[in-house]
Amino acid sequence: MVVTGKISLQTYGRCDIIDITPQVQEQLAESNINRGTVTLFIAGATAGISTIEFESGLLSDFKNMWERNVPQNIDYAHDSRWGDGNGYSHVRASLLGASLVIPFNDRRLTLGTWQQIVVVDFDNRPRSRQIIVQIMGE
Amino acid sequence: MVVTGKISLQTYGRCDIIDITPQVQEQLAESNINRGTVTLFIAGATAGISTIEFESGLLSDFKNMWERNVPQNIDYAHDSRWGDGNGYSHVRASLLGASLVIPFNDRRLTLGTWQQIVVVDFDNRPRSRQIIVQIMGE
Amino acid sequence: MVVTGKISLQTYGRCDIIDITPQVQEQLAESNINRGTVTLFIAGATAGISTIEFESGLLSDFKNMWERNVPQNIDYAHDSRWGDGNGYSHVRASLLGASLVIPFNDRRLTLGTWQQIVVVDFDNRPRSRQIIVQIMGE
Repeated sequence: MVVTGKISLQTYGRCDIIDITPQVQEQLAESNINRGTVTLFIAGATAGISTIEFESGLLSDFKNMWERNVPQNIDYAHDSRWGDGNGYSHVRASLLGASLVIPFNDRRLTLGTWQQIVVVDFDNRPRSRQIIVQIMGE
Repeated sequence: MVVTGKISLQTYGRCDIIDITPQVQEQLAESNINRGTVTLFIAGATAGISTIEFESGLLSDFKNMWERNVPQNIDYAHDSRWGDGNGYSHVRASLLGASLVIPFNDRRLTLGTWQQIVVVDFDNRPRSRQIIVQIMGE
Repeated sequence: MVVTGKISLQTYGRCDIIDITPQVQEQLAESNINRGTVTLFIAGATAGISTIEFESGLLSDFKNMWERNVPQNIDYAHDSRWGDGNGYSHVRASLLGASLVIPFNDRRLTLGTWQQIVVVDFDNRPRSRQIIVQIMGE
């Protein structure tokens, strides 16, 4: 069985980190599938998906890591060419990754206690986002 | 239903970035599966898979990010030991990741408009690559 | 068909890298599923999953990459707030990723010859870990 849903979000961009765990759990509860995998995929080239302990200190630490390793204020060929100033956003998104797959059993995600599912919007402006939630199993 | 295919590529190595979206779409169209997931996996330890807007400026920006964060011209214990000079390639591949999972619906991948699927070959020489394309669904 | 198993590990933490390929292959052999995907997921916010050529030189190179890019000895807001000193562990884990999906065919993982599946425990102390192994296919 396959059930495909979506999560629609308004983000602020600029490394906005949004906890989507409750929405994923809700779609899982409504799916009538007992065990299998939830595949999360972000349609778009300037955002990514991962897990993190959703705590304000860590959100700040995670943003600082991106600023150190893929800084906004260096030259990007993408920006020279297209002028939209979000070259750093694209590079960060490609490194973080667009998909995450989480097994579930007895209708419960196998997440750790302090582990939440997050979308990270690296774009340099607010965006409307669609996250695909595909539940497959039996 | 499960259909397993392959994409065979010749790469130049040295952070060669290859758009495999058309081949994935073609295998999906031939699979007779309407909705489910496509799992892409690169067999090999010096290449990875991700998504990116396939535009020459960004390809250059992405390569520069790798050179800054996992540079070629520092010492690697792998190279001291094995002498093949691709320690940096292995480390980059392990960080980027070997798998990507993309949901599809009505036989269409849920990619964003400017989001392509790419193989990044980090090795320090041309390589023949096999990407596993496994389509699962109903 | 869906079969869900676990791998239980004792790690040393501090970027301990553990090869779990034999355990995954063993669970696959016992599953009676011929082709499909194995989804590996680490429950917990301070460890990740990837593939690497499991060779001591590279393990050292991979650890050095983390120390350069997400160093232990800088300030983390998580540590100021919670005092557990593993802010760097969380940030590394979120960047590496918690899931990996590997297709198999004829009951064989499609790994490359020199490619092993590893858990990387970034925490700053020994931990007991549970890796979810979910096998789905036909």
